[in-house]
Amino acid sequence: MEFVTALVLIFIACGCGIAWAIFNWIAVHKIEIHHKHEGLTEKLQGAEQEKIETLLEIGEHISEGAQAFLKEEYTDCSVFIAIMAVALIFVSPWSTLAFVLGAATSMLCGYLGMAIATAANFRTAFCAIRSLSDAFQMAYRGGCVMGFLLVSISLSILSLIIIIYNSVLVEEGDLDTLISMFDYVAAYGLGGSTFALFGRVGGGIYTKAADVGADLVGKVEKNLPEDSPKNPATIADNVGDNVGDIAGMGADLFGSFAESTCAALVVSSTQLRAIDEGVLNISIGQLMYPLMVSAFGIGICILVSGYAVFIQKVTDIHKIESTLKQQLLLSTVALSPIIIGISYWALPADYVMIQADGTTQLENLKPWHAFVCSLMGLWSGLLIGYFTEYMTSHSYTPVREVAKACGTGAATNIIYGLALGYLSTIVPIISIAVTALLSMKLLSFYGVALAALGMLSNLTIGLAIDAYGPISDNAGGIAEMSELGEDVRTSTDALDAAGNTTAAIGKGFAIGSAALVSLSLYGGYLTRIQTYKNKDAKIDDPIIFAMLLIGAMLPYAFSAFTMKSVGKAALQMVEEVRRQLHEHPGIYAGTEEPDFRACIAISTKASLKEMIPPGLLVIVTPTAVGLFFGPQAVAGLLPGALISGVQMAISASNTGGAWDNAKKYIEAGFYKNDAGEVKKKGSDEHKAAVIGDTVGDPLKDTSGPSLNILIKLMAILSLVLAETFCKTGWLYSE
Amino acid sequence: MEFVTALVLIFIACGCGIAWAIFNWIAVHKIEIHHKHEGLTEKLQGAEQEKIETLLEIGEHISEGAQAFLKEEYTDCSVFIAIMAVALIFVSPWSTLAFVLGAATSMLCGYLGMAIATAANFRTAFCAIRSLSDAFQMAYRGGCVMGFLLVSISLSILSLIIIIYNSVLVEEGDLDTLISMFDYVAAYGLGGSTFALFGRVGGGIYTKAADVGADLVGKVEKNLPEDSPKNPATIADNVGDNVGDIAGMGADLFGSFAESTCAALVVSSTQLRAIDEGVLNISIGQLMYPLMVSAFGIGICILVSGYAVFIQKVTDIHKIESTLKQQLLLSTVALSPIIIGISYWALPADYVMIQADGTTQLENLKPWHAFVCSLMGLWSGLLIGYFTEYMTSHSYTPVREVAKACGTGAATNIIYGLALGYLSTIVPIISIAVTALLSMKLLSFYGVALAALGMLSNLTIGLAIDAYGPISDNAGGIAEMSELGEDVRTSTDALDAAGNTTAAIGKGFAIGSAALVSLSLYGGYLTRIQTYKNKDAKIDDPIIFAMLLIGAMLPYAFSAFTMKSVGKAALQMVEEVRRQLHEHPGIYAGTEEPDFRACIAISTKASLKEMIPPGLLVIVTPTAVGLFFGPQAVAGLLPGALISGVQMAISASNTGGAWDNAKKYIEAGFYKNDAGEVKKKGSDEHKAAVIGDTVGDPLKDTSGPSLNILIKLMAILSLVLAETFCKTGWLYSE
Repeated sequence: MEFVTALVLIFIACGCGIAWAIFNWIAVHKIEIHHKHEGLTEKLQGAEQEKIETLLEIGEHISEGAQAFLKEEYTDCSVFIAIMAVALIFVSPWSTLAFVLGAATSMLCGYLGMAIATAANFRTAFCAIRSLSDAFQMAYRGGCVMGFLLVSISLSILSLIIIIYNSVLVEEGDLDTLISMFDYVAAYGLGGSTFALFGRVGGGIYTKAADVGADLVGKVEKNLPEDSPKNPATIADNVGDNVGDIAGMGADLFGSFAESTCAALVVSSTQLRAIDEGVLNISIGQLMYPLMVSAFGIGICILVSGYAVFIQKVTDIHKIESTLKQQLLLSTVALSPIIIGISYWALPADYVMIQADGTTQLENLKPWHAFVCSLMGLWSGLLIGYFTEYMTSHSYTPVREVAKACGTGAATNIIYGLALGYLSTIVPIISIAVTALLSMKLLSFYGVALAALGMLSNLTIGLAIDAYGPISDNAGGIAEMSELGEDVRTSTDALDAAGNTTAAIGKGFAIGSAALVSLSLYGGYLTRIQTYKNKDAKIDDPIIFAMLLIGAMLPYAFSAFTMKSVGKAALQMVEEVRRQLHEHPGIYAGTEEPDFRACIAISTKASLKEMIPPGLLVIVTPTAVGLFFGPQAVAGLLPGALISGVQMAISASNTGGAWDNAKKYIEAGFYKNDAGEVKKKGSDEHKAAVIGDTVGDPLKDTSGPSLNILIKLMAILSLVLAETFCKTGWLYSE
Repeated sequence: MEFVTALVLIFIACGCGIAWAIFNWIAVHKIEIHHKHEGLTEKLQGAEQEKIETLLEIGEHISEGAQAFLKEEYTDCSVFIAIMAVALIFVSPWSTLAFVLGAATSMLCGYLGMAIATAANFRTAFCAIRSLSDAFQMAYRGGCVMGFLLVSISLSILSLIIIIYNSVLVEEGDLDTLISMFDYVAAYGLGGSTFALFGRVGGGIYTKAADVGADLVGKVEKNLPEDSPKNPATIADNVGDNVGDIAGMGADLFGSFAESTCAALVVSSTQLRAIDEGVLNISIGQLMYPLMVSAFGIGICILVSGYAVFIQKVTDIHKIESTLKQQLLLSTVALSPIIIGISYWALPADYVMIQADGTTQLENLKPWHAFVCSLMGLWSGLLIGYFTEYMTSHSYTPVREVAKACGTGAATNIIYGLALGYLSTIVPIISIAVTALLSMKLLSFYGVALAALGMLSNLTIGLAIDAYGPISDNAGGIAEMSELGEDVRTSTDALDAAGNTTAAIGKGFAIGSAALVSLSLYGGYLTRIQTYKNKDAKIDDPIIFAMLLIGAMLPYAFSAFTMKSVGKAALQMVEEVRRQLHEHPGIYAGTEEPDFRACIAISTKASLKEMIPPGLLVIVTPTAVGLFFGPQAVAGLLPGALISGVQMAISASNTGGAWDNAKKYIEAGFYKNDAGEVKKKGSDEHKAAVIGDTVGDPLKDTSGPSLNILIKLMAILSLVLAETFCKTGWLYSE
């Protein structure tokens, strides 16, 4: 394929994606909220008008709190990015530029995501007064804005970088500069991942410090309901959903997307060669296949999400989950033939993969080799998503078993929940392993990168249904705080329960793609170090085995750090809430307004401070191991962390999701004890379920998803520093 | 060293060990229990005499229950052993013989350990009436019997097998038959490990089904104190301590000991060659170094334990833990110069390690290479033990932090406990990694086997302080059930708290040695498959990477199985207890005796049934992977399971130990809340701690320690089947 054709298509797709996002953005903002809203006049009378005022006010507070956090986070992060940018100048100024652009893109997308989420949340609560269908529309359209903006913006900026670097650096037919150009481009992924460290870890600590802190004083000590307006930490809790689950998740998946594209470009420019009348060569246009897959992904996802927005009506709470799941299925099915088509169109008809020394590693390669890899990724993503839903939704046996275990107390709830999480690794791990096996067999590490991209080809939909979750969660909180009617709460609770499941699905995607991305980056790392030191990564090499063991320990240390960070930050929150309730008895009586800004400030400060130890662990460990023990040591460290981290991430996310939904199952009145009595809020069973849910909070929203960053960031950092490691290794000689 | 000299020394050491065990056995049984016991006459009057009767009766019940379980377990296990023995005939009848002897030795040692433990437990409770010092003596001497019998018997039977096989099979100077002879001998380790599967997994499920079941109805529903005689499951709970922690732990460590000795013999006979006037050769006497280390270990440990028995007096509850820790330190210090001496005496002055093709792998080897490996193992064992104590004893900050977290409820207790367990992997993993790195560098996999043996060289003391734990735990239970006085309970509680810590230390040893044993067996496996297929185990080989990932998943699946097994078996127990209390109200009133035999029968049956799924997972997975995907697949599966399993095992054991001791910390009245009030039994803090303890039960006593068996048994099974795998691999071609 010609480079220009590819670019035109990519920019058309990105343009459509952005237009679709703006269209939804406008649709969300068109809902002006006042108590005389069409169709609401009968529903709202007298005192009800005040509730709408409250709703608007709370919406504003949350938006304000989120902005405040982003401001602090972006300031801190910018300093860090600046330092790393300066260090990268020594690698190449071009790397620095791509790195800064990657970080900036991720920040921009995070900001836009937060803006739409905080605009959609209170509107969703408002729409829930009118109808469930409207509320669902609002939440989902908010999610779509986030999903389409992120993917379209990041793909177009990446393409721009490629155009500029290509025209400035590469002369026609100069393969060597083309290869090193993609090395510079790869720093775009590093930039994204570095910001993701702040987004995921800092955001993850923020959200759970606020949540756990609010629950500990509110629910446990003062017997306030969840999201009570009397609890000073409630607003911080709602801000946290946006900070952690919107901005953090977005940054994480942006990182995966950028890194896997960069990994594919780096590996293919070095190794993929078209056979053109017996001559081996490659042009930049022939390398655009991965970007084309993403571009067509945007197009297909516009159609699929349009179907949900314009044609489907969610009139019944039972249809929520199935509608969201259908989005995933439809986009997967529709993308499959498209990916096959693109591979025949964009790739050379005959090609080979060569090794660093110029010899052929894999030969007789056809377009089908590539699309099999992409499709493996795409479909295993769907499988992981559906299986995650099965393990974490209370429509199925696993979560119901956990809910049943609440009948014998919190301890059995915890035991069953942990067992569920452990068990839930089996299917995702086998999917990832089979995908990795086949794609490595077919196209070596290029195949792995393509599988990761295939899994992310319907990322827009993935992000949309994922961002839908915190928007609905917020809507529920806002409805509660504004004291809207029971039927409104029923609607928002149902939206929220489905959101828990889609959040778990989103986490499944994030972990699966992180594993494949990390593996493809590891492949890039190995290729690099083998160019310098011709040594294989053998498991029985002493330093490799020792480092496999230490690498596998890192996710445990990292999880311990993040969980304790949440604990510490939550205790600070507890103290502030206690202080307010003690010094201002009017808050509990309902006559005085709590100072929620103080709580927001505490969560913001604590989270950014507490992310330092886990952040350093991720950055310092591979660097120090490489510098002191050399490249082989890192070649053991990375896969150790990868294979152990992915298990922990999956089990932590699913355990937490299951506990949360077991609690919701009891709250919804589905739980009956052996004597056939229904046990709801306030029962011993519910108390046991709340304990499980609180334990699950840091697991599913902080330590679990942060592990994605651990395995990806370590890999890309090592890739960038590979050459340095080969020259150092001061403490260990082979 | 001459073979005969080595044998004489080994048998002298084993003889002394057995004599010392018998001496302690007699000392334990000499305490005849009656209420007119010397020095007790003032303490026991009237009604007190009845309590002594009760004490004797309970002791008998526990002993009877333990025998009943062993009978069932041995019957089931014998069938399984018989089937495997028949299958092994196809490998070699000599393997079958060694295999059966290994299993039989392990069974015998388990039986003897149970016999002494059930004789020492109620005597310890009785002695606690008189003095703390006597009670400690009784419990520790009981532990010594177990430790010295197990090591001495297993070492002497292994030596006997070597003598017989050597005289029947090997002609003087025939190196090839000497090598294959040690292949047959290796089945001794497989036999031990196969029984350990039953002991650890079945025993682990038994003990926790009884414990959790007893707690759920007793403490949670009926508000009975722990070990209440009114609870029908109490006796089963006490039986469980013996079944799981004595017989199970013994079988596990017997397996480690036998396997590491066998691994050392197999690797050294194949690879170690003495340089004798320029000629490379090896005699059987020169291979006896590993056995000599174990033999001298017995001798030193007799002296060290004699010091605790005859010279030290534990007059104060604060001295209990330090005395036990000292035993470990003293034996480590005393063994260090001895090991150095033996290596100069028993090993050739100059030797090399050769590869399968006859070329030299490592040259210029001296005795110091070997003793560095052994000492690394020995001292990292001590370090792991001490660090485990630091993380799980309530004398230090970590457990106190967990106890403090109970102040904000069960959820924070669980979060802090999990974080503690994750954090506690760091030091043990670094110790194991450094030990593995250095010993592989120095002597390849022979070095790893020596490190494992070094860690186990003071196994007698390790087992003694470990078996001390359940004996004291039982003593506490018996004192409670016999309603002995408050001061007796204080003594037994203190003994028990120290026992929790030593149990955690024992688990640390068990895991550390299991990791090294498994690594050395993996080394043996790689050597084998490389003889058949000349392929390296490279991490970037597709099948190896995929299997690393799946291997790392196995400990999660296995833990999920074992935890659910405990849950299911515990629920059966709950139903039985509820039934008894419902149908016989006299039990709760104290006028009727509960039917504890029914509870024992349930635990016995359930545990042996519920161990089938996890047991099959361990045996079927490596076999199926090898048969269908070939030897390279297993070469990825084993290290995956090893590096992931060891982390999980450490964190599960330590989390559970910490929760247990956090609860004990509160019960002992050390916990004060922020207002300075002491919170003891019955407080909300204590309830939160009990929830943590119950969650920790299956983690620390079932799934955690069972992982040792997973990583060892998979490795030795693959070693035995290596040749078969090389001929199959039906589904995957390289």
